[in-house]
Amino acid sequence: MKKILKPGIHWLLIFIPISIFLEKTHASAPLIFFSAALSIVPIARLIGGSTEQLAKYTGDAVGGLLNATFGNFPELIIAIVALKAGLHGMVLASLAGAILANLLLAMGVSFLVGGTKFHNQDYNVTSIRVYSSMMLIAVISLTIPSGFHLLTAEKPALENENTLNLYLAVVLLIGYVLYLFFMIKTHADFFKSESGGHGDEHEEKWSITRALITLVVASVLAAFMSELLVGAAEETGQVLGMSSVFIGVIFLAIVGGAAESISAISMAAKNKMDLSISIALGSSIQIALFVAPALVIMSLFVGPSQMNLTFPRPLLVGLFMAVILAAMVAGDGRSNWYKGVQLILIYLIMGMMLYFIPTI
Amino acid sequence: MKKILKPGIHWLLIFIPISIFLEKTHASAPLIFFSAALSIVPIARLIGGSTEQLAKYTGDAVGGLLNATFGNFPELIIAIVALKAGLHGMVLASLAGAILANLLLAMGVSFLVGGTKFHNQDYNVTSIRVYSSMMLIAVISLTIPSGFHLLTAEKPALENENTLNLYLAVVLLIGYVLYLFFMIKTHADFFKSESGGHGDEHEEKWSITRALITLVVASVLAAFMSELLVGAAEETGQVLGMSSVFIGVIFLAIVGGAAESISAISMAAKNKMDLSISIALGSSIQIALFVAPALVIMSLFVGPSQMNLTFPRPLLVGLFMAVILAAMVAGDGRSNWYKGVQLILIYLIMGMMLYFIPTI
Amino acid sequence: MKKILKPGIHWLLIFIPISIFLEKTHASAPLIFFSAALSIVPIARLIGGSTEQLAKYTGDAVGGLLNATFGNFPELIIAIVALKAGLHGMVLASLAGAILANLLLAMGVSFLVGGTKFHNQDYNVTSIRVYSSMMLIAVISLTIPSGFHLLTAEKPALENENTLNLYLAVVLLIGYVLYLFFMIKTHADFFKSESGGHGDEHEEKWSITRALITLVVASVLAAFMSELLVGAAEETGQVLGMSSVFIGVIFLAIVGGAAESISAISMAAKNKMDLSISIALGSSIQIALFVAPALVIMSLFVGPSQMNLTFPRPLLVGLFMAVILAAMVAGDGRSNWYKGVQLILIYLIMGMMLYFIPTI
Repeated sequence: MKKILKPGIHWLLIFIPISIFLEKTHASAPLIFFSAALSIVPIARLIGGSTEQLAKYTGDAVGGLLNATFGNFPELIIAIVALKAGLHGMVLASLAGAILANLLLAMGVSFLVGGTKFHNQDYNVTSIRVYSSMMLIAVISLTIPSGFHLLTAEKPALENENTLNLYLAVVLLIGYVLYLFFMIKTHADFFKSESGGHGDEHEEKWSITRALITLVVASVLAAFMSELLVGAAEETGQVLGMSSVFIGVIFLAIVGGAAESISAISMAAKNKMDLSISIALGSSIQIALFVAPALVIMSLFVGPSQMNLTFPRPLLVGLFMAVILAAMVAGDGRSNWYKGVQLILIYLIMGMMLYFIPTI
Repeated sequence: MKKILKPGIHWLLIFIPISIFLEKTHASAPLIFFSAALSIVPIARLIGGSTEQLAKYTGDAVGGLLNATFGNFPELIIAIVALKAGLHGMVLASLAGAILANLLLAMGVSFLVGGTKFHNQDYNVTSIRVYSSMMLIAVISLTIPSGFHLLTAEKPALENENTLNLYLAVVLLIGYVLYLFFMIKTHADFFKSESGGHGDEHEEKWSITRALITLVVASVLAAFMSELLVGAAEETGQVLGMSSVFIGVIFLAIVGGAAESISAISMAAKNKMDLSISIALGSSIQIALFVAPALVIMSLFVGPSQMNLTFPRPLLVGLFMAVILAAMVAGDGRSNWYKGVQLILIYLIMGMMLYFIPTI
Repeated sequence: MKKILKPGIHWLLIFIPISIFLEKTHASAPLIFFSAALSIVPIARLIGGSTEQLAKYTGDAVGGLLNATFGNFPELIIAIVALKAGLHGMVLASLAGAILANLLLAMGVSFLVGGTKFHNQDYNVTSIRVYSSMMLIAVISLTIPSGFHLLTAEKPALENENTLNLYLAVVLLIGYVLYLFFMIKTHADFFKSESGGHGDEHEEKWSITRALITLVVASVLAAFMSELLVGAAEETGQVLGMSSVFIGVIFLAIVGGAAESISAISMAAKNKMDLSISIALGSSIQIALFVAPALVIMSLFVGPSQMNLTFPRPLLVGLFMAVILAAMVAGDGRSNWYKGVQLILIYLIMGMMLYFIPTI
């Protein structure tokens, strides 16, 4: 377990009992919130690690599928918990925030950290192109129901809107399945990195039982800590004077993706830029094309009412611009420290704006 | 004639008498509409074929000009008929729809069909770059009068708006003439395909009289069938519960461009990607830079009032996104089946949205 | 001095006394305005020339810094004068206009002039990529406060808005300083042109005293003539039936950047495309990332109230589209006459729209 949590985050598991203690003693919401947030980071890494171990027993195709599907499991769990509580606005904010955090923050810090060690870092452009157009498609798709909502706001078009969102979710999931088929089966050569295999070479190999048990236990823990996290989110916002959108976009999003972001950054520091970028971009795509539509369909069964993909306009414009920017910055197959600065600056500026908007 | 209609569409000519019969017997509007629509496909192919035959007698430059100008003759005829009837909204919808159908549907199906036969298909990027920036310029230009309309909606700025649209139409036509000059005269080398000449090698050669007569007869037929088509369009929408914008964007647009789209797809199946893409993109450009401004100017003489290029906002945003997406997807000179899927998915999603919007 | 003003603009200095005479005799506002405008062109060139001379005494890094910082000194002076007069709308319009004039007009004319002499002109793509993403970042940043303003228009969020704008200005200036560091220190190799050094080879070298005195005198003259220019601007608009936004976007912007634009065009005519493009794009970036935020901060001390970066929506959309277009058109490292036409056409069309809008 230590090896999987190697980048020095296993000690964060201590925040599991701390969070429970804080919750039981009715500590203030922000304390519970941030404690639960910290505890989810190593749990997420455990989920990722045990999935990778399982993948070793399944062969490449199923393994790729497992990794892809469980790659954003923590985000999914947090979102489902918030969905159950009917916090649709916060769910959407956390989805948008996760995409922004991956495209701008994780990739930006990766470029910056890598760029301070190496003058230029080269990577394979073919996969970047696929990722970029996937992201653009995802964002265009998410624009549709939001635009529809804006256009029909005053008219009683609720039924149409729900139908449109369901159909859209199904189309996106079909697109996602074909994307996996493309990536794992027909054009796996596009996604080969030049810099060597995934993960570390001398990693221990777990028994299949151990991998499965770890996955199940970690998932249960993640669900439990997400309950604490989401339960404290709104009150945390009130205490700190932040809107629930801001809490969702910044904090929930970063917590859910922290484990993956740390991987992306440590890969960049080792000059494995292909891996670094594919983690950050691949994760964004899964959120937009798998997690988001899956949540729409789940909302029929889990939550109080159907959740539609109607993002507030600032988030939508932000997503669109982040995708265009990331495509432009990453698109020439060579990174340096200043590209990292550029991405981080835009993340900062967008965060500032969301912080200062009274309500969205 | 059979050779020109070779991809097996000449039997569709049977829909000419069928449509006339349906019209005379006052059949239901959708029957007339779809019958007339089917009859226009082979007529459009005849127009294209006779233009190509004429071009053989004129030398490259004039031939290029002829092909370019008559390339979207069917769209133009349908639009003029709708213009005469004062259906400005439907004309604009059919123009936007024709661009979307070319960029997303025709190119998407081409990539998909080609991609199922060949693992990757390569093509010349230089011409794609020219086409992409032309399309972006066209869309930016079309944004201007629509934005102007939105901004001045409440003020009585009608006269200014008409003037702006006329000036804009003139500027676009100047841009189009210079584009032809660039493409045919100064930089013809950019547009040479690597995969061989236009059309099939062993095609018969017509006499100039035959070519001219075919062109004239086919044009008259096209105009006549367009009258039936447009006359039945609005009622068809009402019967099927579709808005007239949806009818224009989807049905009118696909009918007008079907012949060209079929060519583009069959070129892709023969691995002639340069030709395939240049048909789809070239056609979009002609619609935006030639057909659209020409219709504005014609509307002074043909219709009840001047038609301005004020597209409804969803169409405008859709056009902008389709152009950016097509540029990104097609821009690296190599296609595969999944790129086709991406483009088709976005076309589907946009279509879904337009279907569900009550009125635009 | 003649050598510096070589492209035949030194005789324009005659407009300094002419403008003063017109002002003293209370001539009509447009006369004063255009006379002062013409006089600023050679003054701006003197500022640029003396800065280059100074740079010869300082070593590469400081020299680069000097050139970068004083590159848009004329624009800055005009803007400060307008800021003092509280003409915030005109300042913002002149900033947006300066970016548009550089990206579309100066680059367009450069491509056109160069393209009439040479079939194709090649240039280094690496620096273009950096410039393009910098411009996109700049425009995204400028979108934030404007979007914020639109979203909170009805609510009394003035204090938040001022704070957001100040923070944004600071973040942009930090980004600008790091950009200079990147460009001058760590990655100077990216910006090496293949076509030889800056400026003309056999240029005379000034004494440091002469350079300093010229710089100071020219700056004082620029400030003085800007007073006349700005003082006559609003009345000129009224007399000619133009909005103050139009005056700012077109006239103030072109005047401030004329000297640099002339350099860019004359470099293109000499087939030094790297220099030509880096002047046009570099200048846009400095305006967005240095002049604009600097003016926000200065407005705390100079003007009647804080100036926020809330651009009217047509300018914002125009900026965004101009950046995407310029990136697409310039991005393949090869220019021709028609690319120039494309850029100029869009500038014309945008200008037309701004002319016809009653008020923005």
